Amino acid sequence: MKNVNNSKLKIIPLGGLEQIGMNITAFEFEDSIIVVDCGLAFPEDDMLGIDLVIPDVTYLKDNISKVKGFVITHGHEDHIGALPYVLREVNVPIYATKLTMGIIENKLKEHNLMRGTKRKVIKHGQSINLGCFRIEFIKTNHSIADAAALAIYSPAGIVVHTGDFKVDYTPVFGDAIDLQRLGEIGKKGVLAVMCDSTNAERKGFTMSEKTVGATFDNIFAEHKNTRIIIATFASNVDRVQQIINSAYKYGRKVVVEGRSMVSIISIATELGYLNIPDKTLIDIEQLKNYPDEQTVIITTGSQGESMAALSRMAASIHKKVTIKPGDTIIFSSNPIPGNEKAVSNVINELIAKGADVIFQDTHVSGHACQEEIKLIYSLLRPKYAIPVHGEFRHLKAQGNLVQELGIPKENVFIMRSGEVLELNDDGAAITDKVQTGAILVDGLGVGDVGNIVLRDRQRLAEDGILIVVLTLEKYGNQVLAGPDIVSRGFVYVRESEDLMEEARAIINDALDECMDKNITDWGKIKNIMKDSLSDFLWKKTKRNPMILPIIMEV
Amino acid sequence: MKNVNNSKLKIIPLGGLEQIGMNITAFEFEDSIIVVDCGLAFPEDDMLGIDLVIPDVTYLKDNISKVKGFVITHGHEDHIGALPYVLREVNVPIYATKLTMGIIENKLKEHNLMRGTKRKVIKHGQSINLGCFRIEFIKTNHSIADAAALAIYSPAGIVVHTGDFKVDYTPVFGDAIDLQRLGEIGKKGVLAVMCDSTNAERKGFTMSEKTVGATFDNIFAEHKNTRIIIATFASNVDRVQQIINSAYKYGRKVVVEGRSMVSIISIATELGYLNIPDKTLIDIEQLKNYPDEQTVIITTGSQGESMAALSRMAASIHKKVTIKPGDTIIFSSNPIPGNEKAVSNVINELIAKGADVIFQDTHVSGHACQEEIKLIYSLLRPKYAIPVHGEFRHLKAQGNLVQELGIPKENVFIMRSGEVLELNDDGAAITDKVQTGAILVDGLGVGDVGNIVLRDRQRLAEDGILIVVLTLEKYGNQVLAGPDIVSRGFVYVRESEDLMEEARAIINDALDECMDKNITDWGKIKNIMKDSLSDFLWKKTKRNPMILPIIMEV
Repeated sequence: MKNVNNSKLKIIPLGGLEQIGMNITAFEFEDSIIVVDCGLAFPEDDMLGIDLVIPDVTYLKDNISKVKGFVITHGHEDHIGALPYVLREVNVPIYATKLTMGIIENKLKEHNLMRGTKRKVIKHGQSINLGCFRIEFIKTNHSIADAAALAIYSPAGIVVHTGDFKVDYTPVFGDAIDLQRLGEIGKKGVLAVMCDSTNAERKGFTMSEKTVGATFDNIFAEHKNTRIIIATFASNVDRVQQIINSAYKYGRKVVVEGRSMVSIISIATELGYLNIPDKTLIDIEQLKNYPDEQTVIITTGSQGESMAALSRMAASIHKKVTIKPGDTIIFSSNPIPGNEKAVSNVINELIAKGADVIFQDTHVSGHACQEEIKLIYSLLRPKYAIPVHGEFRHLKAQGNLVQELGIPKENVFIMRSGEVLELNDDGAAITDKVQTGAILVDGLGVGDVGNIVLRDRQRLAEDGILIVVLTLEKYGNQVLAGPDIVSRGFVYVRESEDLMEEARAIINDALDECMDKNITDWGKIKNIMKDSLSDFLWKKTKRNPMILPIIMEV
Repeated sequence: MKNVNNSKLKIIPLGGLEQIGMNITAFEFEDSIIVVDCGLAFPEDDMLGIDLVIPDVTYLKDNISKVKGFVITHGHEDHIGALPYVLREVNVPIYATKLTMGIIENKLKEHNLMRGTKRKVIKHGQSINLGCFRIEFIKTNHSIADAAALAIYSPAGIVVHTGDFKVDYTPVFGDAIDLQRLGEIGKKGVLAVMCDSTNAERKGFTMSEKTVGATFDNIFAEHKNTRIIIATFASNVDRVQQIINSAYKYGRKVVVEGRSMVSIISIATELGYLNIPDKTLIDIEQLKNYPDEQTVIITTGSQGESMAALSRMAASIHKKVTIKPGDTIIFSSNPIPGNEKAVSNVINELIAKGADVIFQDTHVSGHACQEEIKLIYSLLRPKYAIPVHGEFRHLKAQGNLVQELGIPKENVFIMRSGEVLELNDDGAAITDKVQTGAILVDGLGVGDVGNIVLRDRQRLAEDGILIVVLTLEKYGNQVLAGPDIVSRGFVYVRESEDLMEEARAIINDALDECMDKNITDWGKIKNIMKDSLSDFLWKKTKRNPMILPIIMEV
């Protein structure tokens, strides 16, 4: 390694800001690249029909010989969900803690990718060497067990990436965040910190996960005569542990419902992250053998997702569980932005069925608030701050916060997707921009739905489609059959026969006009039909359906 | 009026619970019906392409000879918005306070309905007689000026309908809510109270509108060197007044931007509800003649509505205003449930442009919290409680609240749309259900979009459409032209030529099969083509587009 003093580390967010949710960041130094996390995003409202969104990793493919591996901070979808797609093109080893790896392996199995993927489980406190980088996994706390911060040692200096974290002095499982080690690394001198910004607009300190356990105990004590149903995030194993603890304490059997909940609980139990007393868990089929007041159902659906178990119970389409008056239903979650209305709809349905719905003090965030962010920066005292994980407003809020701690404004970098930050002790600057983007996944199709298709879907969703079909004589423009008009999603035809009759007349007039003017070019004929029908429909209905003329020739 | 003692008053919510937003309630006693409010609802997420939703008033049409008039509590869309549609079928006089009537008349003008509609402006404290009812308008406070509660005197007893209200002891314009009169009416004996439940889940007391004015003053004092842009609800005239007051105090000119904002401010000024000092208001074209720090822009778009002025500024597509670094932008509003993400997107765009966005202490609700609701019930001490205005959870929360005040559970009625509550001093019960429902308005079409059309739009939005066209020989099943496949919103064809080629082969096979089996029934041929293509596409893509076979004959 020559010219170490002048060489710079490159940090490149490949999902990054404009693709909220896709956490994937490349660290590059000379001939080595490591990638932190590989997340997916859920579609925005205007991405009609899209199932999920993954990052464009062209930059990694173009530099595949340099890429040493993925180092993963924790097992949430926005940090690991794109792995099954990205690994097909960037097949490098994965490094993660035990539970995180368990969840990743579950995904790889579903995609038949276990055999071709190298994996290594790393313990907190352990380091790995990848090319010219050394990466140390440091214990943190989060809403999923086994989360890690990463200290990335490069020849240009140390970068600490917090992953998603909070400071929990009294965690439910395992140790508190390793503040001592962070202080020790801080003493060595830290070049940059990349810190979770999710709650950077919130004052104070996020409460310990244990406070939720105390609330559960109170609720169980106050509702001894009813069934209890608790909805929470499947991956929050500590939350599930606390529900099981309260259930055991109050002599209730526990049923787990919802596919993702069952899957995570089985992984967590197998790997020793969940401690379930004997005979506490029962199968949903056994529910009928116990009185209501001796049961608890832990379920998915805390976000109002229409196909999740709780939503199906609320809508009376769940096969095994029927909501009864008096049921106590706990939302152990906050709505993720965008889900507020769906959650409220489910709550209304449950209350209308006579259930008692509780959502106060039954959730704490997994992300650090302002005082915790200040604590981390005060332990690490980095030269540069690169806020990560959050919307622009959250990154900006963290940027403002760290300036209060004395980091100068010009040392705070709020990066956009694809920007290349080059940094070492002598300076830091955005120097380049590489190709990045959002690749849409719809069913089995990866990237085959683009803007044109989405625009069409939007138009079809708004006003539907009218198809005009006719058969023309070959080498002439004599109409042999049609014009027929078929509509879908426009108006219900039986109730609008007059309108469709008039539309046919408009099309016939347009065809006559083409005959008169001796227009034989199909493109022109189609456009004339389209324009005249479109004008007519706008005047009559103030709607703008897609109009699709199809000409056949015989 | 015979048998007054035994006769019962009927209360029938015609929009009501399942159609949130459409506030319209019929009060019927023998041969008299009065209707309180006539609101519209905004479409739910699954009502694709729908502009607005109005109530089905079949019950009023069927009883048109009894209907004496509409009495309106205040000028918000969810209380007056359906009038232009309903008046066409139920043409009876409208009674409202001055500003409320001004806003209604503005609507009627747009719909060319001024001439045919009888209208009468009522003052607070004044009563009107309609059939066997007397209705007294009582001063309240709300987020729009001139709101009224209604004391409805019927032979069966007095019902007080609060409308939307809060208790504001220090209102910006006009008097505080007339608590004395409510107490006086309470002393007479009140049969039932119908009270606003919007904030019934919130503890405490809603702050006075004046507290927002104090915040504005502070913000203006702290941001003397930047332009200030404030987004709020167009109809909140008092809020606009306070912005103008602060602007005047700090020597700034005020620009009003956004169609609905301009319209309401002109009505309010004309009717004397807004007091604008001379030379304070300037036209948007004059903005360039003043330095930034001497201007304030009051704008629509506080809900992140994509076409509103602030959203267009944020997206850099506003023709007159360009957001600059340093601009101070105030959201004087809370997101209405369902708009959270849209609002956050606009905030992110503004912050990304370097603006400083403020949303703390810059809004108060217009609705009563728990202590105010308790106050109203304590002044009126009704026999029955009928919580109104809110989602089911909110009505239920008010129902629980009033039980704490000593109203027995069986005297609390949480009504659904169309239910008929019959009540007098001897008792109350739901006795019947009348036809109600949501009528969808799409462009000029009222009620021509039903469930089938919405289902089609949903399907088209998810996966698009494939149209299969072929021309068959008359009296045979010889294919003369086609099959052609055209797709929209499915995949971008140029990138999926192989898939479409295979699809054509599948259709040809299906046709061959029909030939071989001598199937000539078009319905059957279409179904065979549809099923085989659908199976093929699901296997290949895990998508389920609409498939539309069209057969022509020559």
